[in-house]
Amino acid sequence: MTAQTDQKRPGSRRIIISVDAMGGDAGPSAVVAGIVKSAEKNPDIGFILHGPQQQLEPLVSRQRTLEGRVEYRDVADVVTMEDRPSHVMRNGKGTSMWSALESVRSGEADGAVSCGNTGALMALSMLRLRKLPGVNRPAIAVLWPSRNPQGFNVMLDVGADIRADARDLLQYALMGASYARNGMDLRRPRIGLLNVGTEQHKGRTELKEAHGLIAQFAETANYDFVGFVEGSDIPGDVADVIVTDGFTGNVAIKTGEGTAGLIGDLLREAFKYSPLSRLASVLAITSMNRLKKRIDPRRVNGGVFLGLNGNVVKSHGSADATGVSAAIKLAFHLAQSGFAEKLAARVASTVELTQDDPIPAANPDQDHNEGQA
Amino acid sequence: MTAQTDQKRPGSRRIIISVDAMGGDAGPSAVVAGIVKSAEKNPDIGFILHGPQQQLEPLVSRQRTLEGRVEYRDVADVVTMEDRPSHVMRNGKGTSMWSALESVRSGEADGAVSCGNTGALMALSMLRLRKLPGVNRPAIAVLWPSRNPQGFNVMLDVGADIRADARDLLQYALMGASYARNGMDLRRPRIGLLNVGTEQHKGRTELKEAHGLIAQFAETANYDFVGFVEGSDIPGDVADVIVTDGFTGNVAIKTGEGTAGLIGDLLREAFKYSPLSRLASVLAITSMNRLKKRIDPRRVNGGVFLGLNGNVVKSHGSADATGVSAAIKLAFHLAQSGFAEKLAARVASTVELTQDDPIPAANPDQDHNEGQA
Repeated sequence: MTAQTDQKRPGSRRIIISVDAMGGDAGPSAVVAGIVKSAEKNPDIGFILHGPQQQLEPLVSRQRTLEGRVEYRDVADVVTMEDRPSHVMRNGKGTSMWSALESVRSGEADGAVSCGNTGALMALSMLRLRKLPGVNRPAIAVLWPSRNPQGFNVMLDVGADIRADARDLLQYALMGASYARNGMDLRRPRIGLLNVGTEQHKGRTELKEAHGLIAQFAETANYDFVGFVEGSDIPGDVADVIVTDGFTGNVAIKTGEGTAGLIGDLLREAFKYSPLSRLASVLAITSMNRLKKRIDPRRVNGGVFLGLNGNVVKSHGSADATGVSAAIKLAFHLAQSGFAEKLAARVASTVELTQDDPIPAANPDQDHNEGQA
Repeated sequence: MTAQTDQKRPGSRRIIISVDAMGGDAGPSAVVAGIVKSAEKNPDIGFILHGPQQQLEPLVSRQRTLEGRVEYRDVADVVTMEDRPSHVMRNGKGTSMWSALESVRSGEADGAVSCGNTGALMALSMLRLRKLPGVNRPAIAVLWPSRNPQGFNVMLDVGADIRADARDLLQYALMGASYARNGMDLRRPRIGLLNVGTEQHKGRTELKEAHGLIAQFAETANYDFVGFVEGSDIPGDVADVIVTDGFTGNVAIKTGEGTAGLIGDLLREAFKYSPLSRLASVLAITSMNRLKKRIDPRRVNGGVFLGLNGNVVKSHGSADATGVSAAIKLAFHLAQSGFAEKLAARVASTVELTQDDPIPAANPDQDHNEGQA
């Protein structure tokens, strides 16, 4: 698999991103605006665009940057935010989302991006791309602004599955470490397991069990395990990767987003309050814009699906051109670095652990894949 | 119980707050500074102070405001942040925490405040004050800055217990509604049940079950049920009370606190960045201080223990004088309004629901207590 990847990666080859043009809150015009932004910055990128061609072509043909860089897959149906994943799995064949994944499956594209229904996208991804051998539950990983030098932490799972047992959490640790190594150039990422306290006796049974497992595999899988961390550490600097189940992770990121949004609004109000504060807002505008950029969720838009045969990035449903472009950039980098293949190798090296029952002791002498997945 | 409370509540009577002087990160001097702040603002308050008298007396005697308003309970031991709740339950008799709760139990004090170990405080509170009849799991409720007109939302449970089944969540809804009615003067609070999406098919089994139960009791218990809410709604305006299990709630508030802290630090940096931004910070200082006050977690410091025979407020472990004073103010208001008794009546009115098995249908004709608990 690695050999195949290497063939795919001469610097000059164009990376093709399969883009679901439909299903986002802002409609296909925001998606096309996003691919324009990406195309302007990146000469090595091409697109396959999925949706009603009649609707998409006028949006694309206006843009000279996109000339010769977009192929269409004309599909009429759209997965809505209200559609149940189970329904989409049975009836989704004619949708832009299904079609977008199909291009990855067939090898025509190197990764897929969609702004649509998260649950449906994960269900279809598992159905069409299949889970990596040995992965029980794939996960969605996001980047979160933090106090760490790299500026961000990885958190997973943020909503692929509302359950996770101890082995799932170990797999999240392995996959999150891979992602941090590849996405943030951290040689030896620090993993933290999210809990309600840092003391070892705290938390649910599966967390205590996962604590043992993740500690056990630190050396073999080349990460540091810092133990239990708390919600306040998600934007903190004690860990680079925060591991949790998809229910807790989803609530946590949405709470963080909501809190940041409230503070932003109150800050804008404060700057409008008096003539003095209005003057202050003018004087501080450069510094404030820098701050805004630092914590702008659009810039780190994109939940990466980990544990599948292929790169899939879920963009925020309400993403604008900046957000869509960030998600495309992420998919591009993952494809360019051969991330899916590296991750597959990493997971394969621990597959016996996650399939055996009961949980076996780790064998430190085991010959693990040395690729930095 | 109500009669007894009424006797206790002539406007002129001094309300006695039992304060655990030890166990906080900042030591007894921060606690004494907090009671000084409260005493200065509130002539109707008196204190019983628990800890080594030799250490406390010099701190208190310097303060003229406290003259004649402080009684001591001389106890030598302290519950540390590292002590396990189970250990404290067996061996905690000589600690300031135990002693502080004892004063509430005996009726000498109208409420207790502690900055100490949360798990130990909850365990001792259950042991000494006992749960209200019909309450399975007590909960910790906090106020959280929000977009609602009242400026805050109630969230519970934020860490009394890491588990909660459907009936526990219903009780949290009932107790949270009572708290919002008494603490924020909301006639008919809106309850939201925290989940990973607002669609009814989402989430764990116990959440779907709780959804039905909480909806069923909306009329009888005089609240509106807005259904499932997401993490972003915790600081939002769609609900006044956010109901969740203690694991999720704890992670959510700590994530929110951590995110707010990071933004605050980045904002300070931004204001220091250039001569212009430094000038801006001077001009905007009044507006910024107003904003800071609006979201200052110290001002809403205090997790209220709900579901016990007595008022207990857990102050943040790192609380300074402002934080301790806020927690004392909260305990004072709860005691003054006879909250524990109203809550007991409210819970008693639904006790048959939570004890029967299987879950019975609600009886809308039932004669419920009309007090606004």
